[in-house]
Amino acid sequence: MAVKAPPSIRLAAAPQRIASSAIRDLLAVAERPDVISLAGGLPSPAAFPVDAIAEATACLLADDPAGALQYSATAGFAPLRAWVAGRHDADADQVVVTHGSQQALELVVRALVDPGDVIALADPGYVGAVQAFRLAGASLLGVPSDGDGLQVDLLAARLAAGARPALVYVVAELDNPTGTTLSLDRRHALAALADRYGFVILDDDPYSALRWAGEPPVPLRSLTDRVVTLGTTSKVLCPGLRVGWAVAPLELAAQLVVLKQAVDLQTATLTQRIAHRVLARPGFLEPHILRLRATYEAQCAALVTALDAELGGRLLFDLPSGGMFVWARLPGVDTSRLLAAAIDEGTAFVPGAAFAVTPGPTDTLRLSFATASPEDLAEAATRLARALNHPNLRH
Amino acid sequence: MAVKAPPSIRLAAAPQRIASSAIRDLLAVAERPDVISLAGGLPSPAAFPVDAIAEATACLLADDPAGALQYSATAGFAPLRAWVAGRHDADADQVVVTHGSQQALELVVRALVDPGDVIALADPGYVGAVQAFRLAGASLLGVPSDGDGLQVDLLAARLAAGARPALVYVVAELDNPTGTTLSLDRRHALAALADRYGFVILDDDPYSALRWAGEPPVPLRSLTDRVVTLGTTSKVLCPGLRVGWAVAPLELAAQLVVLKQAVDLQTATLTQRIAHRVLARPGFLEPHILRLRATYEAQCAALVTALDAELGGRLLFDLPSGGMFVWARLPGVDTSRLLAAAIDEGTAFVPGAAFAVTPGPTDTLRLSFATASPEDLAEAATRLARALNHPNLRH
Repeated sequence: MAVKAPPSIRLAAAPQRIASSAIRDLLAVAERPDVISLAGGLPSPAAFPVDAIAEATACLLADDPAGALQYSATAGFAPLRAWVAGRHDADADQVVVTHGSQQALELVVRALVDPGDVIALADPGYVGAVQAFRLAGASLLGVPSDGDGLQVDLLAARLAAGARPALVYVVAELDNPTGTTLSLDRRHALAALADRYGFVILDDDPYSALRWAGEPPVPLRSLTDRVVTLGTTSKVLCPGLRVGWAVAPLELAAQLVVLKQAVDLQTATLTQRIAHRVLARPGFLEPHILRLRATYEAQCAALVTALDAELGGRLLFDLPSGGMFVWARLPGVDTSRLLAAAIDEGTAFVPGAAFAVTPGPTDTLRLSFATASPEDLAEAATRLARALNHPNLRH
Repeated sequence: MAVKAPPSIRLAAAPQRIASSAIRDLLAVAERPDVISLAGGLPSPAAFPVDAIAEATACLLADDPAGALQYSATAGFAPLRAWVAGRHDADADQVVVTHGSQQALELVVRALVDPGDVIALADPGYVGAVQAFRLAGASLLGVPSDGDGLQVDLLAARLAAGARPALVYVVAELDNPTGTTLSLDRRHALAALADRYGFVILDDDPYSALRWAGEPPVPLRSLTDRVVTLGTTSKVLCPGLRVGWAVAPLELAAQLVVLKQAVDLQTATLTQRIAHRVLARPGFLEPHILRLRATYEAQCAALVTALDAELGGRLLFDLPSGGMFVWARLPGVDTSRLLAAAIDEGTAFVPGAAFAVTPGPTDTLRLSFATASPEDLAEAATRLARALNHPNLRH
């Protein structure tokens, strides 16, 4: 058979709204084995509860293989829904189990956002959320944030001036990338705005279990009914199960189930049951979370010590209270240009521009301390300092 | 805290395009334990390769727990992509691993179909596909089918008259619900139409491994480059892993990966690796498939024998060549109305109206032989015969 010309296939509008970015292409290069990358968003595999997962899986497949491997309910495994509901003071019918919390986010967007609708979010913001919002054809309203999270007074001003978002997206606990926690006052103010203007608050919460300093304020969902809370097992157990959830107002939860049915029928029966069995195992979760926190706190300390030693005075950052990242500034440096130099020196980070809702050069960067060894974290800091000595990095 | 009124949340257009149906509500009733339901689409749990899955999982978690439980590539586990590519005479870069083939279907629709675009498909057709098409706001063009599958000449006439579908959906092997296989002539004709009019053929193939009679014609993807083939482990291994795939033209595969990233980042690392380890295990798959076919063939024979004994002459159907279903007619009977009577008698089926692309009463029904015991299949046939004696079932 002769080789045919590849078919020219017309794309719909949706995929044309999102694309691979220059930064993502550059970060793909950083996956070379000689690069100590602090760019990733991977949790520490040393903290995965492998034995608990292996034991749970073996028990499930021995005790009820048909149940663990068959099709199951679109809304999710009922005991897992009940477990999540119990952690959120919610009704099990409000819980929809999803294939990771990214899917939960995307389903909420499909339920609530038409092309052209406005979604407000902190700028900088989580790249995965921004991609899902762009895919939906949303118009993004970036709101600056500071050490207390999204500046709700600035959002209020935009609302007063006529902005009418369908959705306001926040990572209220240990934001990605900035690491900030939305203050109590701002939570009250945001909840009041939701009730007044009728938008839904999408509170994405992957990191709250990884807090080792400070006290979390009351959850947004206790302040208004107009909240969808997203959760995941990715940082508490491991990402490879892809088990997350949305806790939503009842009628919205029912819509998410209808959407989920059309989109992929259900989340994997096996991984849901594994997750539930591990999470609900008596005596497991609380000590496991304490170990996780200690692990990440020590990793963070190793990176911070190395950064202070190598870049003290030039690199500015607040000490993280939890999570996986240091969010920092290099005043006067275009960190997108620094990245290429850093990769040349054998390290990598995510430049702030990757998180920018409103594009433009920035002097910010995100450094992950989650996966590299303390020695590699120190070496990465040394390489980063070397990269900073390259010429032509200014704005 | 006082009980607040539930928030009134404005839904986007997408979720309003799909809804729970009256038939689905009735079938939910059929899940009562006293009902022998032949309505489900569940594969037989007796055929799940439980030992192979348990052993694969234990090995994965012992040998490379970090690899099995960490985030992984959006396009899928490379060895699984290569395995799928090998089965389809394709390049591994053409393969995108998805969370079940329903997600593959939905991603293809998002890549190619804008609201208002036309999707052509056999009428009756697979409910899950129809839901995904409606969610996308597609305009559905139902094309009648007969014993040789979708009547491609009727599609050609619609194309000649100006119809311009973005996508033509077929289940070319052992169609659900009708059980038919698209004939070789029609495959050639359909491929030629795709090349002429520029549509993409979406060839959904969950059942081909379950064929025990007849020879499959050449795959559509060998006749034109404008084909996306969907596959799944759900019927060959088990549904609870949620591992499926699309094999697509290269540039479309790349788009599916970008969409997949925005939608849920990746398919579960653990279930992909389990699926690959079981599928690629030397000496496993071919004998396993032979056992599967023998199981389903025997189950089919049990149902057919019972139907002939209880309903011979009234219920008309072709003997299935594979798959999980008998597709039948009860001339003169409105099977949607029969369903309520059948549930009263303690059995259930899916009335043809549930699969209708163009709504209306039908005398068709789908009976699953996959999961009930031979005794229960016989009892279900007896109950169905009793239900037929209820008054008021005519059109």
